[in-house]
Amino acid sequence: MSQLYIIPHDHEIKLDHRIERSGHKPLLIWLTGLSGSGKSTIANALEKKLFAESYQTYILDGDNIRSGLNRDLGFDGDSRVENIRRIGEVARLFVDAGLVVITAFISPFERERELVREIIGSENYFQVFVDCPLDECEKRDVKGLYKKARSGEIKNFTGIDSPFEKPNNPDLIVDTITSSLEESVDQILNQVIKRIS
Amino acid sequence: MSQLYIIPHDHEIKLDHRIERSGHKPLLIWLTGLSGSGKSTIANALEKKLFAESYQTYILDGDNIRSGLNRDLGFDGDSRVENIRRIGEVARLFVDAGLVVITAFISPFERERELVREIIGSENYFQVFVDCPLDECEKRDVKGLYKKARSGEIKNFTGIDSPFEKPNNPDLIVDTITSSLEESVDQILNQVIKRIS
Repeated sequence: MSQLYIIPHDHEIKLDHRIERSGHKPLLIWLTGLSGSGKSTIANALEKKLFAESYQTYILDGDNIRSGLNRDLGFDGDSRVENIRRIGEVARLFVDAGLVVITAFISPFERERELVREIIGSENYFQVFVDCPLDECEKRDVKGLYKKARSGEIKNFTGIDSPFEKPNNPDLIVDTITSSLEESVDQILNQVIKRIS
Repeated sequence: MSQLYIIPHDHEIKLDHRIERSGHKPLLIWLTGLSGSGKSTIANALEKKLFAESYQTYILDGDNIRSGLNRDLGFDGDSRVENIRRIGEVARLFVDAGLVVITAFISPFERERELVREIIGSENYFQVFVDCPLDECEKRDVKGLYKKARSGEIKNFTGIDSPFEKPNNPDLIVDTITSSLEESVDQILNQVIKRIS
């Protein structure tokens, strides 16, 4: 049985109906940056503000993805690409359901970030580079991961023995050294609200 | 890097907040049955009614899953199990986001339907057996698939050369021979509304 045998059913409730109901458009807000750069903290604070303003929101991050959908994937190169592909596909479903989805994944490779853009469509994609120098992330080392990467206990750790490719064309860069959390969130909100209104 | 290194972040917006906002609980309504039994038609009509009554809803079916998230999977035994596992995990995310999710997949094996129940939790799972005899499904043959299965053009087709295990303990059975579409949908709604109110 091939893809040919999947005959589309026309769903009568479409995105337009959902937008009319909720009063806002969907969007994928894709945060990319080093471990410790502040992605998850920003995602959480951003969702709080959006939710408080009555937007329908959801966060996808390692916490709910790696423990469920992607529990079968490791951290080698192929698995990391498949990890991001699946997240992009799940985000596409949430966007189709009308939600504002915020993701917090290192996503170090330009090609995987561009794959997500293709999956979701440029009009639904807002990429934020959460910029923080490696030495600062390593100094913070909130999760103790850099120490483990330096000692060799963790392999293929982004920034240490695996590269982070800076985004070529992010929709926004937030600098978590010069900006406070609140400032970073407001910078994102200013752009995002225009996109979803 | 292992699962140990995924440190949970506490999302401040939790399901309780979403329920308070929407006024209803989430639920996974899992339709199981032969190809041609009426699952997708029921799913669509059910969503229309729920949406009209202001519930937040979404349908997962072959149309949006096989063309995206699960495009890498074939139709052999292992792939079919992985197909259902991923759908269960995606449904779990939607349920966590507060939505009423309706799925329309043949899902012929009890063990995979039970896997979904484990993933989503019994309290969030409502299984509907869309019951229609094989000869009637084959007579309808809306998609022309039975004919192709009989001729051998499609292999491993449920009901022909792959078994359908009737659910051991469905929450509801709808009989699409004796019930009209509207009656079937109303039977489901009667039970579901109690669960999500």
